[in-house]
Amino acid sequence: MCRDVAELDDAIRRLVVRGAPLLGLAGAFGVALAAYRGEDVAEAAAVLSRARPTAVNLGWGAGRALAAYRAAVRAGPDQNQDAERPGARAALAEAWSIAEQDAAASAAIAAHGLDLVPARARILTHCNTGALVSAGEGTAFAIILAAHRAGRLARLWVDETRPLLQGARLTAFEAGRAGLPYAVLADGAAASLMAAGEVDLVLTGADRVAADGSVANKVGTYGLAVLARHHGVPFVVAAPMSTIDLAAAEGGAIVVEHRDAAEVTSFAGLAVAPAGSAAYNPAFDVTPAALITALVTERGVARPVNAGTLHRLDVCQPARAAAPADVCLER
Amino acid sequence: MCRDVAELDDAIRRLVVRGAPLLGLAGAFGVALAAYRGEDVAEAAAVLSRARPTAVNLGWGAGRALAAYRAAVRAGPDQNQDAERPGARAALAEAWSIAEQDAAASAAIAAHGLDLVPARARILTHCNTGALVSAGEGTAFAIILAAHRAGRLARLWVDETRPLLQGARLTAFEAGRAGLPYAVLADGAAASLMAAGEVDLVLTGADRVAADGSVANKVGTYGLAVLARHHGVPFVVAAPMSTIDLAAAEGGAIVVEHRDAAEVTSFAGLAVAPAGSAAYNPAFDVTPAALITALVTERGVARPVNAGTLHRLDVCQPARAAAPADVCLER
Repeated sequence: MCRDVAELDDAIRRLVVRGAPLLGLAGAFGVALAAYRGEDVAEAAAVLSRARPTAVNLGWGAGRALAAYRAAVRAGPDQNQDAERPGARAALAEAWSIAEQDAAASAAIAAHGLDLVPARARILTHCNTGALVSAGEGTAFAIILAAHRAGRLARLWVDETRPLLQGARLTAFEAGRAGLPYAVLADGAAASLMAAGEVDLVLTGADRVAADGSVANKVGTYGLAVLARHHGVPFVVAAPMSTIDLAAAEGGAIVVEHRDAAEVTSFAGLAVAPAGSAAYNPAFDVTPAALITALVTERGVARPVNAGTLHRLDVCQPARAAAPADVCLER
Repeated sequence: MCRDVAELDDAIRRLVVRGAPLLGLAGAFGVALAAYRGEDVAEAAAVLSRARPTAVNLGWGAGRALAAYRAAVRAGPDQNQDAERPGARAALAEAWSIAEQDAAASAAIAAHGLDLVPARARILTHCNTGALVSAGEGTAFAIILAAHRAGRLARLWVDETRPLLQGARLTAFEAGRAGLPYAVLADGAAASLMAAGEVDLVLTGADRVAADGSVANKVGTYGLAVLARHHGVPFVVAAPMSTIDLAAAEGGAIVVEHRDAAEVTSFAGLAVAPAGSAAYNPAFDVTPAALITALVTERGVARPVNAGTLHRLDVCQPARAAAPADVCLER
């Protein structure tokens, strides 16, 4: 429970709240919270936007709620609104709207992504992309669930995803809850799985997609993409349009968050490396578009992934979220 | 302290005693121990040889001690020996001889390998290959120490090496003790280090080398080799000749040990995945020779690594361990 923006900011930094779509909601609801508490709403949006530098959805969600707040404040109270806080009501309504859109996006991503899943698929995933990070069933994990329901999932391989083990702790939990046939593996074991011909598809989420299609995602993703290419395995990324950051021209423009060495050198408070050990601990890595077979969004599938296909998805943006999701579908 | 072969077998299975060269010593000293205790020596050699299926040095060391034991028993006691156990003395002498040869091999590997280390090298290593696994300074780690002493080591990147964290726990300890400039990283972060141009050389040990130059080593090694190739980084393996198994024609002939799921699904007794989670937990993977830039042995460097260069190292085997180590050097 976060009672003010400072607590929410702390929860985001400590990864209590995490995952691209959910961070969009956190940004928006955080701005609404600030508005209801009478705090400086623009400052709250700024604080939340920079809580984690790589995750673009944070600033996107906070920005949408802030815009709704400002528009309502400019318009002034009307007879249907609490006279004292029209902005707060508008910000909260916008946050709920984002949640609804996220759930709809998740369902559309699942439907589009299912087309890319072969029969009897053995899918390898990294990090956590399910209902724990979404108002719906998530991004990559929503596709995995759809594949399971369609009888196409033979096996889900779950990368444990060091250092914070979001795969072992969270994805395995979601997989078990849904009754999926899954197994956990150390991240370093994925290569031998591919060499053994045990992986038909690698499927991950994204934390930020640059305009050229480069994808920042949980550290380890880029290595999987290189391995998938080496073994001829398709490498597919699933993300809502809100994760695409056209302001970042290319992958090199994405700031990668580096986190505390203790995440690597200790575990649950227990030291696993000698005291004083330095650590290289980027939270994300960047995968070039050329290594990505397809990018699945709620508006369709960019395939190949490049500035042109992303632009097509962007410009044919439906006026309303309710527009047919396959308007921009590329096959 | 292992007081009989059963205790030693258990210690090897639990990885209390581990690492290719040290397992050779464990096999030999274990046979000597059985001989002194009056146990069935051939049975002891068989038990120790199969304690871990991938590590070829175990059977090699046990076999050498067993051969020495049998030769001494056949010859019978002479005036300089304990009349009741000439075999035991011979087995122990052979074990000590293996230890001396291992220390000499380590020094020769370091000298040969140093030629492959550029100035200001940033070296990435995986698992643990130092004095903790050797009667000398180890294999890959001996080269790293030589590079440090020669002023060529700018940075040692230490893969933590999940699931059992031999990198974070052991290699970081050895690096810190030797005053090396090192940092630990999650295995999944190695790819982004290479992409950033921060790795000049990947250097690992081996648990078994097939006749075609395929290398079985700690799981995660093969993925590093693919990544190194993708980024144009040399990938070098260091191992004593005793790790080369000419009876294994190619990599597919190497049996890879699969270990308990709990190594992945729990950590220090704490569950990190839901109860009942399955795990894929191979202890090793196999890297094809084509991805290996060079194999450094005490007899010289095979470069490229293939059946021909391995054969050349094998046939020009010096009659005595004291023969010049560079007799077979390939450059």
